[in-house]
Amino acid sequence: MESRKEADLLTKWDGSAFVPHVSIDLVIFGFHDGQLKVLLLHWRTGTDWLLPSGFIHHDENMDDAAHRSLQERTGLQAVFLQQFHTFGEAVRFKHFTKQETMIRLGFPGDIDEPLFRRHVSIGYYALVEFSEVVPTPDQFTDECRWWDVDEVPPLLFDHNDMIKLALKTLRRQLSYQPIGYNLLPEKFTMPELQRLYETILGQPLDRRNFQKRVLGYDILERLEERKTGGAHKAPYLYRFDKARYEKVLEDGMSFVG
Amino acid sequence: MESRKEADLLTKWDGSAFVPHVSIDLVIFGFHDGQLKVLLLHWRTGTDWLLPSGFIHHDENMDDAAHRSLQERTGLQAVFLQQFHTFGEAVRFKHFTKQETMIRLGFPGDIDEPLFRRHVSIGYYALVEFSEVVPTPDQFTDECRWWDVDEVPPLLFDHNDMIKLALKTLRRQLSYQPIGYNLLPEKFTMPELQRLYETILGQPLDRRNFQKRVLGYDILERLEERKTGGAHKAPYLYRFDKARYEKVLEDGMSFVG
Repeated sequence: MESRKEADLLTKWDGSAFVPHVSIDLVIFGFHDGQLKVLLLHWRTGTDWLLPSGFIHHDENMDDAAHRSLQERTGLQAVFLQQFHTFGEAVRFKHFTKQETMIRLGFPGDIDEPLFRRHVSIGYYALVEFSEVVPTPDQFTDECRWWDVDEVPPLLFDHNDMIKLALKTLRRQLSYQPIGYNLLPEKFTMPELQRLYETILGQPLDRRNFQKRVLGYDILERLEERKTGGAHKAPYLYRFDKARYEKVLEDGMSFVG
Repeated sequence: MESRKEADLLTKWDGSAFVPHVSIDLVIFGFHDGQLKVLLLHWRTGTDWLLPSGFIHHDENMDDAAHRSLQERTGLQAVFLQQFHTFGEAVRFKHFTKQETMIRLGFPGDIDEPLFRRHVSIGYYALVEFSEVVPTPDQFTDECRWWDVDEVPPLLFDHNDMIKLALKTLRRQLSYQPIGYNLLPEKFTMPELQRLYETILGQPLDRRNFQKRVLGYDILERLEERKTGGAHKAPYLYRFDKARYEKVLEDGMSFVG
Protein backbone atom coordinates (compact mmCIF):
# COMPACT_ATOMS: atom_id res chain seq x y z
CA MET A 1 0.00 0.00 0.00
CA GLU A 2 2.79 2.37 0.89
CA SER A 3 4.43 2.01 -2.50
CA ARG A 4 1.06 2.44 -4.19
CA LYS A 5 0.51 5.73 -2.38
CA GLU A 6 4.00 6.79 -3.34
CA ALA A 7 3.36 5.89 -6.97
CA ASP A 8 0.17 7.95 -6.95
CA LEU A 9 2.15 10.94 -5.79
CA LEU A 10 4.70 10.81 -8.57
CA THR A 11 3.95 12.75 -11.72
CA LYS A 12 4.78 10.66 -14.73
CA TRP A 13 6.67 12.44 -17.46
CA ASP A 14 4.55 12.79 -20.57
CA GLY A 15 5.67 15.58 -22.86
CA SER A 16 2.15 16.23 -24.15
CA ALA A 17 0.67 16.61 -20.66
CA PHE A 18 2.76 19.70 -19.90
CA VAL A 19 3.40 23.18 -21.30
CA PRO A 20 6.27 22.49 -23.70
CA HIS A 21 9.58 24.39 -23.51
CA VAL A 22 9.02 25.45 -19.90
CA SER A 23 10.43 23.65 -16.87
CA ILE A 24 10.90 24.26 -13.17
CA ASP A 25 14.04 23.48 -11.17
CA LEU A 26 14.04 23.29 -7.40
CA VAL A 27 16.92 24.24 -5.11
CA ILE A 28 15.75 22.82 -1.77
CA PHE A 29 17.83 24.01 1.20
CA GLY A 30 17.80 22.39 4.63
CA PHE A 31 19.85 23.12 7.75
CA HIS A 32 21.26 20.29 9.86
CA ASP A 33 24.13 19.92 12.26
CA GLY A 34 25.51 23.37 11.53
CA GLN A 35 25.54 22.73 7.79
CA LEU A 36 23.48 24.10 4.94
CA LYS A 37 22.29 21.20 2.77
CA VAL A 38 20.74 20.88 -0.68
CA LEU A 39 18.58 18.01 -1.97
CA LEU A 40 19.86 16.21 -5.09
CA LEU A 41 18.66 13.32 -7.23
CA HIS A 42 20.79 10.51 -8.69
CA TRP A 43 19.96 9.46 -12.26
CA ARG A 44 18.92 5.80 -12.37
CA THR A 45 21.75 4.93 -14.79
CA GLY A 46 25.34 6.10 -14.54
CA THR A 47 26.88 8.37 -11.92
CA ASP A 48 25.16 11.70 -12.46
CA TRP A 49 23.38 13.93 -9.96
CA LEU A 50 20.97 16.77 -10.64
CA LEU A 51 18.37 19.06 -9.09
CA PRO A 52 14.73 18.01 -8.76
CA SER A 53 12.71 19.34 -11.72
CA GLY A 54 9.09 19.76 -12.62
CA PHE A 55 6.80 20.62 -15.48
CA ILE A 56 3.59 22.62 -15.68
CA HIS A 57 0.25 21.08 -16.65
CA HIS A 58 -1.61 23.01 -19.34
CA ASP A 59 -4.24 24.32 -16.93
CA GLU A 60 -1.98 24.63 -13.88
CA ASN A 61 -0.52 27.81 -12.38
CA MET A 62 3.28 27.77 -12.39
CA ASP A 63 3.51 28.28 -8.61
CA ASP A 64 1.16 25.35 -8.06
CA ALA A 65 3.36 23.18 -10.29
CA ALA A 66 6.39 24.16 -8.20
CA HIS A 67 4.60 23.30 -4.94
CA ARG A 68 3.41 19.99 -6.41
CA SER A 69 6.95 19.08 -7.50
CA LEU A 70 8.36 20.04 -4.10
CA GLN A 71 5.76 17.90 -2.38
CA GLU A 72 6.57 14.95 -4.62
CA ARG A 73 10.27 15.08 -3.65
CA THR A 74 9.91 15.94 0.05
CA GLY A 75 6.37 15.14 1.21
CA LEU A 76 6.08 18.76 2.40
CA GLN A 77 3.35 21.29 1.70
CA ALA A 78 3.16 24.98 2.45
CA VAL A 79 6.83 25.70 2.97
CA PHE A 80 8.87 28.74 1.98
CA LEU A 81 9.17 28.38 -1.79
CA GLN A 82 9.86 31.21 -4.16
CA GLN A 83 11.15 31.79 -7.65
CA PHE A 84 14.61 33.37 -7.70
CA HIS A 85 15.65 33.46 -11.37
CA THR A 86 14.58 32.23 -14.78
CA PHE A 87 17.27 30.49 -16.80
CA GLY A 88 16.89 31.20 -20.49
CA GLU A 89 20.17 30.52 -22.21
CA ALA A 90 19.80 28.84 -25.59
CA VAL A 91 22.37 26.19 -24.60
CA ARG A 92 22.17 25.05 -20.99
CA PHE A 93 24.53 22.06 -21.15
CA LYS A 94 27.63 22.90 -19.14
CA HIS A 95 29.89 19.99 -18.17
CA PHE A 96 28.71 17.80 -21.07
CA THR A 97 27.22 18.54 -24.51
CA LYS A 98 23.58 17.77 -25.25
CA GLN A 99 24.52 14.56 -27.06
CA GLU A 100 26.88 13.42 -24.28
CA THR A 101 24.21 14.18 -21.72
CA MET A 102 21.58 12.14 -23.57
CA ILE A 103 23.93 9.15 -23.83
CA ARG A 104 24.97 9.40 -20.15
CA LEU A 105 21.30 9.36 -19.22
CA GLY A 106 20.55 6.28 -21.32
CA PHE A 107 18.85 7.88 -24.33
CA PRO A 108 20.11 7.43 -27.91
CA GLY A 109 22.01 10.63 -28.69
CA ASP A 110 20.19 11.29 -31.94
CA ILE A 111 16.47 11.18 -31.14
CA ASP A 112 14.15 14.12 -30.61
CA GLU A 113 13.29 13.48 -26.97
CA PRO A 114 11.07 16.27 -25.52
CA LEU A 115 13.10 16.17 -22.27
CA PHE A 116 16.08 17.51 -24.19
CA ARG A 117 14.40 20.19 -26.25
CA ARG A 118 15.09 23.77 -25.33
CA HIS A 119 13.54 24.66 -22.00
CA VAL A 120 13.32 28.00 -20.30
CA SER A 121 13.53 27.01 -16.65
CA ILE A 122 12.10 28.88 -13.70
CA GLY A 123 14.39 28.37 -10.70
CA TYR A 124 12.63 28.17 -7.32
CA TYR A 125 14.30 27.83 -3.97
CA ALA A 126 12.80 26.31 -0.87
CA LEU A 127 13.80 26.47 2.79
CA VAL A 128 12.66 23.42 4.70
CA GLU A 129 12.98 21.90 8.14
CA PHE A 130 15.48 19.12 7.50
CA SER A 131 13.96 16.60 9.89
CA GLU A 132 10.51 16.73 8.27
CA VAL A 133 11.64 15.81 4.77
CA VAL A 134 11.10 12.35 3.27
CA PRO A 135 13.49 12.45 0.27
CA THR A 136 11.74 10.69 -2.63
CA PRO A 137 13.25 9.98 -6.08
CA ASP A 138 11.19 10.45 -9.24
CA GLN A 139 10.70 8.00 -12.12
CA PHE A 140 14.07 8.90 -13.69
CA THR A 141 16.12 8.59 -10.51
CA ASP A 142 16.97 5.96 -7.92
CA GLU A 143 18.21 8.07 -5.03
CA CYS A 144 17.29 11.38 -3.42
CA ARG A 145 19.53 12.71 -0.66
CA TRP A 146 20.99 15.75 1.06
CA TRP A 147 24.41 17.13 0.15
CA ASP A 148 26.43 19.76 1.99
CA VAL A 149 26.27 22.83 -0.25
CA ASP A 150 30.06 23.02 -0.36
CA GLU A 151 30.43 19.37 -1.42
CA VAL A 152 28.05 19.32 -4.38
CA PRO A 153 29.59 17.39 -7.33
CA PRO A 154 29.49 18.57 -10.98
CA LEU A 155 25.80 18.32 -11.88
CA LEU A 156 23.95 17.83 -15.15
CA PHE A 157 22.83 20.80 -17.26
CA ASP A 158 23.42 24.21 -15.57
CA HIS A 159 22.36 22.99 -12.14
CA ASN A 160 25.59 24.02 -10.36
CA ASP A 161 24.99 27.59 -11.56
CA MET A 162 21.45 27.38 -10.23
CA ILE A 163 22.57 26.38 -6.73
CA LYS A 164 25.20 29.13 -6.75
CA LEU A 165 22.67 31.78 -7.71
CA ALA A 166 20.03 30.48 -5.29
CA LEU A 167 22.57 30.74 -2.47
CA LYS A 168 23.56 34.23 -3.55
CA THR A 169 19.90 35.27 -3.65
CA LEU A 170 19.30 33.77 -0.22
CA ARG A 171 22.27 35.71 1.20
CA ARG A 172 21.11 38.91 -0.40
CA GLN A 173 17.59 38.37 0.85
CA LEU A 174 18.93 38.23 4.40
CA SER A 175 19.97 41.86 3.97
CA TYR A 176 16.39 43.09 3.70
CA GLN A 177 14.21 40.26 4.99
CA PRO A 178 14.32 37.87 7.91
CA ILE A 179 14.58 34.25 6.86
CA GLY A 180 14.71 31.19 9.00
CA TYR A 181 11.15 30.40 9.91
CA ASN A 182 11.30 27.11 8.04
CA LEU A 183 14.89 26.23 8.88
CA LEU A 184 14.73 26.14 12.68
CA PRO A 185 12.61 24.25 15.19
CA GLU A 186 9.69 26.18 16.67
CA LYS A 187 11.65 27.44 19.67
CA PHE A 188 15.28 28.42 19.41
CA THR A 189 17.91 30.55 21.10
CA MET A 190 19.56 33.68 19.77
CA PRO A 191 22.90 31.82 19.36
CA GLU A 192 21.11 29.15 17.30
CA LEU A 193 19.58 31.78 15.04
CA GLN A 194 22.95 33.50 14.69
CA ARG A 195 24.56 30.16 13.80
CA LEU A 196 22.01 29.69 11.02
CA TYR A 197 22.72 33.14 9.60
CA GLU A 198 26.48 32.59 9.82
CA THR A 199 26.13 29.27 8.02
CA ILE A 200 24.07 30.78 5.20
CA LEU A 201 26.36 33.80 4.90
CA GLY A 202 29.53 31.77 5.27
CA GLN A 203 31.07 34.27 7.70
CA PRO A 204 31.04 35.08 11.42
CA LEU A 205 28.80 37.90 12.65
CA ASP A 206 29.22 40.24 15.58
CA ARG A 207 26.90 39.03 18.35
CA ARG A 208 25.59 42.42 19.46
CA ASN A 209 25.06 43.83 15.98
CA PHE A 210 23.32 40.64 14.93
CA GLN A 211 20.97 40.72 17.90
CA LYS A 212 20.16 44.39 17.37
CA ARG A 213 19.48 43.90 13.68
CA VAL A 214 17.36 40.81 13.98
CA LEU A 215 15.31 42.12 16.91
CA GLY A 216 14.80 45.30 14.90
CA TYR A 217 12.60 43.38 12.49
CA ASP A 218 10.13 43.05 15.36
CA ILE A 219 9.16 39.52 14.40
CA LEU A 220 10.65 37.55 17.31
CA GLU A 221 8.82 36.78 20.49
CA ARG A 222 10.97 36.16 23.58
CA LEU A 223 9.50 33.40 25.70
CA GLU A 224 9.62 33.21 29.48
CA GLU A 225 11.33 29.82 29.22
CA ARG A 226 15.07 29.48 29.01
CA LYS A 227 16.89 26.72 27.22
CA THR A 228 17.76 23.96 29.69
CA GLY A 229 21.13 22.28 29.47
CA GLY A 230 24.68 22.58 30.69
CA ALA A 231 25.28 26.29 30.11
CA HIS A 232 26.14 28.45 33.11
CA LYS A 233 23.57 31.04 32.16
CA ALA A 234 20.84 29.44 30.09
CA PRO A 235 19.86 31.54 27.05
CA TYR A 236 16.29 32.69 26.45
CA LEU A 237 14.13 30.87 23.93
CA TYR A 238 12.52 32.77 21.07
CA ARG A 239 9.94 31.95 18.48
CA PHE A 240 8.77 33.71 15.33
CA ASP A 241 5.57 35.74 15.43
CA LYS A 242 4.24 34.21 12.25
CA ALA A 243 1.77 36.95 11.29
CA ARG A 244 4.42 39.67 11.63
CA TYR A 245 7.02 37.51 9.94
CA GLU A 246 4.80 37.11 6.90
CA LYS A 247 4.00 40.79 6.80
CA VAL A 248 7.69 41.69 6.78
CA LEU A 249 8.36 39.08 4.09
CA GLU A 250 5.63 40.67 2.02
CA ASP A 251 6.70 44.29 2.55
CA GLY A 252 10.44 43.92 2.60
CA MET A 253 12.45 46.52 4.48
CA SER A 254 12.46 50.02 3.13
CA PHE A 255 15.48 52.05 2.11
CA VAL A 256 14.89 54.37 5.03
CA GLY A 257 14.37 51.51 7.52
CA MET B 1 15.22 55.12 -46.23
CA GLU B 2 14.38 56.00 -42.65
CA SER B 3 11.24 53.88 -42.70
CA ARG B 4 13.21 51.01 -44.26
CA LYS B 5 15.75 51.13 -41.43
CA GLU B 6 12.93 51.22 -38.95
CA ALA B 7 11.27 48.23 -40.59
CA ASP B 8 14.53 46.28 -40.41
CA LEU B 9 14.65 46.91 -36.70
CA LEU B 10 11.18 45.61 -36.00
CA THR B 11 10.83 41.92 -35.34
CA LYS B 12 7.84 40.62 -37.24
CA TRP B 13 5.62 38.29 -35.29
CA ASP B 14 5.77 34.77 -36.69
CA GLY B 15 4.76 32.13 -34.18
CA SER B 16 7.05 29.50 -35.68
CA ALA B 17 10.15 31.72 -35.50
CA PHE B 18 10.05 31.85 -31.71
CA VAL B 19 10.12 29.50 -28.73
CA PRO B 20 6.40 28.81 -28.23
CA HIS B 21 4.64 29.43 -24.91
CA VAL B 22 7.34 31.80 -23.66
CA SER B 23 7.18 35.59 -23.89
CA ILE B 24 8.95 38.61 -22.46
CA ASP B 25 7.28 41.74 -21.13
CA LEU B 26 9.17 44.98 -20.59
CA VAL B 27 8.49 47.56 -17.89
CA ILE B 28 10.59 50.49 -19.08
CA PHE B 29 10.99 53.24 -16.47
CA GLY B 30 12.19 56.75 -17.22
CA PHE B 31 12.50 59.83 -14.99
CA HIS B 32 11.44 63.26 -16.24
CA ASP B 33 10.35 66.49 -14.64
CA GLY B 34 10.19 64.97 -11.17
CA GLN B 35 7.97 62.11 -12.36
CA LEU B 36 8.60 58.41 -12.79
CA LYS B 37 7.32 57.35 -16.22
CA VAL B 38 6.61 54.03 -17.91
CA LEU B 39 6.55 53.34 -21.66
CA LEU B 40 3.28 51.94 -23.07
CA LEU B 41 2.03 50.89 -26.51
CA HIS B 42 -1.40 51.61 -28.00
CA TRP B 43 -3.00 48.75 -29.95
CA ARG B 44 -3.62 49.78 -33.58
CA THR B 45 -7.37 49.16 -33.28
CA GLY B 46 -9.57 50.20 -30.38
CA THR B 47 -8.56 52.02 -27.24
CA ASP B 48 -6.30 49.58 -25.42
CA TRP B 49 -2.81 50.09 -24.03
CA LEU B 50 -0.27 47.47 -23.04
CA LEU B 51 3.39 46.88 -22.19
CA PRO B 52 5.99 46.23 -24.89
CA SER B 53 6.50 42.49 -25.37
CA GLY B 54 8.99 40.24 -27.07
CA PHE B 55 9.57 36.65 -28.05
CA ILE B 56 12.69 34.50 -28.07
CA HIS B 57 14.20 33.09 -31.27
CA HIS B 58 14.95 29.36 -31.10
CA ASP B 59 18.71 29.89 -30.93
CA GLU B 60 18.66 33.14 -28.96
CA ASN B 61 19.47 33.61 -25.27
CA MET B 62 16.52 35.01 -23.32
CA ASP B 63 18.49 38.04 -22.09
CA ASP B 64 19.52 38.84 -25.68
CA ALA B 65 15.87 38.68 -26.74
CA ALA B 66 14.97 41.12 -23.96
CA HIS B 67 17.73 43.54 -25.02
CA ARG B 68 16.66 43.25 -28.67
CA SER B 69 13.04 44.00 -27.80
CA LEU B 70 14.07 46.96 -25.65
CA GLN B 71 16.17 48.33 -28.46
CA GLU B 72 13.30 47.96 -30.91
CA ARG B 73 11.01 50.07 -28.71
CA THR B 74 13.53 52.68 -27.51
CA GLY B 75 16.56 52.68 -29.80
CA LEU B 76 18.73 52.09 -26.71
CA GLN B 77 21.41 49.48 -26.15
CA ALA B 78 23.31 48.52 -23.02
CA VAL B 79 21.01 50.00 -20.43
CA PHE B 80 20.03 48.67 -17.01
CA LEU B 81 17.70 45.78 -17.83
CA GLN B 82 16.97 42.90 -15.54
CA GLN B 83 14.38 40.21 -15.03
CA PHE B 84 12.28 40.80 -11.94
CA HIS B 85 9.60 38.09 -11.99
CA THR B 86 8.19 35.34 -14.18
CA PHE B 87 4.43 35.35 -14.59
CA GLY B 88 3.07 31.83 -14.88
CA GLU B 89 -0.61 31.89 -14.06
CA ALA B 90 -2.69 29.62 -16.27
CA VAL B 91 -5.13 32.47 -16.99
CA ARG B 92 -3.52 35.88 -17.39
CA PHE B 93 -6.52 37.84 -18.68
CA LYS B 94 -7.57 40.32 -15.99
CA HIS B 95 -9.88 43.15 -17.11
CA PHE B 96 -11.29 41.19 -20.07
CA THR B 97 -11.65 37.46 -20.85
CA LYS B 98 -9.52 35.83 -23.51
CA GLN B 99 -12.35 35.98 -26.06
CA GLU B 100 -13.13 39.62 -25.27
CA THR B 101 -9.46 40.46 -25.54
CA MET B 102 -9.15 38.80 -28.95
CA ILE B 103 -12.18 40.67 -30.29
CA ARG B 104 -11.00 44.02 -28.87
CA LEU B 105 -7.68 43.47 -30.61
CA GLY B 106 -9.32 42.70 -33.98
CA PHE B 107 -9.00 38.91 -34.07
CA PRO B 108 -11.99 36.56 -34.46
CA GLY B 109 -12.68 35.32 -30.91
CA ASP B 110 -12.73 31.67 -31.92
CA ILE B 111 -9.47 31.01 -33.80
CA ASP B 112 -6.34 29.38 -32.42
CA GLU B 113 -4.02 32.38 -32.76
CA PRO B 114 -0.56 31.63 -31.30
CA LEU B 115 -0.46 35.13 -29.73
CA PHE B 116 -3.27 34.07 -27.41
CA ARG B 117 -2.06 30.63 -26.41
CA ARG B 118 -0.80 30.18 -22.89
CA HIS B 119 2.46 32.03 -22.34
CA VAL B 120 4.76 32.00 -19.37
CA SER B 121 6.13 35.53 -19.42
CA ILE B 122 9.44 36.70 -18.07
CA GLY B 123 9.05 40.26 -16.77
CA TYR B 124 12.08 42.53 -17.23
CA TYR B 125 12.42 46.06 -16.04
CA ALA B 126 14.63 48.73 -17.52
CA LEU B 127 15.81 52.07 -16.20
CA VAL B 128 16.56 54.50 -18.99
CA GLU B 129 17.55 58.11 -19.47
CA PHE B 130 14.27 59.63 -20.61
CA SER B 131 15.76 62.11 -23.07
CA GLU B 132 17.63 59.44 -25.05
CA VAL B 133 14.59 57.30 -25.87
CA VAL B 134 12.96 57.29 -29.31
CA PRO B 135 9.59 55.62 -28.54
CA THR B 136 8.78 53.26 -31.43
CA PRO B 137 5.57 51.22 -31.88
CA ASP B 138 5.69 47.63 -33.13
CA GLN B 139 3.66 46.06 -35.96
CA PHE B 140 0.59 45.62 -33.73
CA THR B 141 0.55 49.15 -32.36
CA ASP B 142 0.27 52.70 -33.64
CA GLU B 143 1.60 54.72 -30.71
CA CYS B 144 4.34 54.36 -28.14
CA ARG B 145 4.55 56.94 -25.36
CA TRP B 146 5.44 57.67 -21.75
CA TRP B 147 2.82 57.63 -19.00
CA ASP B 148 3.19 58.81 -15.41
CA VAL B 149 3.27 55.62 -13.33
CA ASP B 150 0.36 56.85 -11.24
CA GLU B 151 -1.80 57.60 -14.28
CA VAL B 152 -1.53 54.26 -16.10
CA PRO B 153 -4.96 53.16 -17.46
CA PRO B 154 -6.35 49.59 -17.19
CA LEU B 155 -4.07 47.59 -19.48
CA LEU B 156 -4.52 44.37 -21.43
CA PHE B 157 -3.65 40.99 -19.89
CA ASP B 158 -1.98 41.20 -16.44
CA HIS B 159 0.17 44.18 -17.38
CA ASN B 160 -1.03 46.43 -14.53
CA ASP B 161 0.13 43.76 -12.07
CA MET B 162 3.48 43.66 -13.85
CA ILE B 163 4.06 47.40 -13.46
CA LYS B 164 3.02 47.23 -9.82
CA LEU B 165 5.44 44.41 -9.07
CA ALA B 166 8.26 45.99 -11.08
CA LEU B 167 7.87 49.16 -9.05
CA LYS B 168 7.82 47.20 -5.81
CA THR B 169 10.98 45.35 -6.85
CA LEU B 170 12.67 48.61 -7.80
CA ARG B 171 11.82 50.09 -4.39
CA ARG B 172 13.05 47.01 -2.58
CA GLN B 173 16.21 46.98 -4.64
CA LEU B 174 16.96 50.50 -3.42
CA SER B 175 17.25 49.05 0.08
CA TYR B 176 20.32 47.02 -0.78
CA GLN B 177 21.66 48.44 -4.05
CA PRO B 178 22.22 51.87 -5.46
CA ILE B 179 20.17 52.57 -8.57
CA GLY B 180 20.07 55.67 -10.66
CA TYR B 181 23.00 55.45 -13.02
CA ASN B 182 20.70 55.27 -16.02
CA LEU B 183 18.06 57.67 -14.75
CA LEU B 184 20.13 60.81 -14.23
CA PRO B 185 22.37 62.89 -16.45
CA GLU B 186 26.12 62.23 -16.09
CA LYS B 187 26.64 64.97 -13.48
CA PHE B 188 24.06 65.69 -10.82
CA THR B 189 23.69 67.23 -7.40
CA MET B 190 22.86 65.45 -4.15
CA PRO B 191 19.39 67.09 -4.06
CA GLU B 192 18.72 65.80 -7.59
CA LEU B 193 19.68 62.27 -6.58
CA GLN B 194 17.53 62.52 -3.47
CA ARG B 195 14.61 63.74 -5.59
CA LEU B 196 14.96 60.66 -7.80
CA TYR B 197 14.92 58.33 -4.80
CA GLU B 198 11.95 60.14 -3.29
CA THR B 199 10.06 59.84 -6.56
CA ILE B 200 10.72 56.12 -6.86
CA LEU B 201 9.91 55.46 -3.20
CA GLY B 202 6.90 57.79 -3.21
CA GLN B 203 7.90 59.38 0.10
CA PRO B 204 10.14 62.15 1.44
CA LEU B 205 13.55 61.19 2.85
CA ASP B 206 15.60 62.84 5.55
CA ARG B 207 18.40 64.80 3.85
CA ARG B 208 21.23 63.85 6.22
CA ASN B 209 20.34 60.16 6.48
CA PHE B 210 19.97 59.95 2.73
CA GLN B 211 23.36 61.53 2.12
CA LYS B 212 25.05 59.29 4.68
CA ARG B 213 23.48 56.16 3.24
CA VAL B 214 24.14 56.90 -0.38
CA LEU B 215 27.73 58.04 0.21
CA GLY B 216 28.21 54.85 2.25
CA TYR B 217 27.95 52.82 -0.95
CA ASP B 218 31.25 54.45 -1.98
CA ILE B 219 30.21 54.73 -5.60
CA LEU B 220 29.84 58.50 -5.96
CA GLU B 221 32.64 60.78 -6.99
CA ARG B 222 32.37 64.41 -5.84
CA LEU B 223 33.60 66.75 -8.53
CA GLU B 224 35.42 70.01 -7.95
CA GLU B 225 32.73 71.82 -9.94
CA ARG B 226 29.60 73.15 -8.35
CA LYS B 227 26.27 73.49 -10.05
CA THR B 228 25.90 76.99 -11.45
CA GLY B 229 22.59 78.78 -11.17
CA GLY B 230 20.68 81.04 -8.89
CA ALA B 231 21.28 79.30 -5.59
CA HIS B 232 22.96 81.23 -2.82
CA LYS B 233 25.35 78.37 -2.11
CA ALA B 234 25.73 76.26 -5.22
CA PRO B 235 25.65 72.49 -4.51
CA TYR B 236 28.51 70.20 -5.49
CA LEU B 237 28.19 68.05 -8.58
CA TYR B 238 28.64 64.29 -8.32
CA ARG B 239 28.97 61.50 -10.79
CA PHE B 240 28.87 57.72 -10.50
CA ASP B 241 32.14 55.79 -10.45
CA LYS B 242 30.92 53.27 -12.99
CA ALA B 243 33.32 50.43 -12.12
CA ARG B 244 32.47 50.58 -8.42
CA TYR B 245 28.79 51.03 -9.19
CA GLU B 246 28.76 47.83 -11.22
CA LYS B 247 30.69 45.94 -8.57
CA VAL B 248 28.16 46.95 -5.91
CA LEU B 249 25.28 46.01 -8.23
CA GLU B 250 26.89 42.62 -8.69
CA ASP B 251 27.68 42.00 -5.00
CA GLY B 252 24.66 43.55 -3.36
CA MET B 253 25.05 44.82 0.18
CA SER B 254 25.65 42.28 2.89
CA PHE B 255 23.51 41.70 5.94
CA VAL B 256 26.32 43.02 8.09
CA GLY B 257 26.91 46.09 5.91
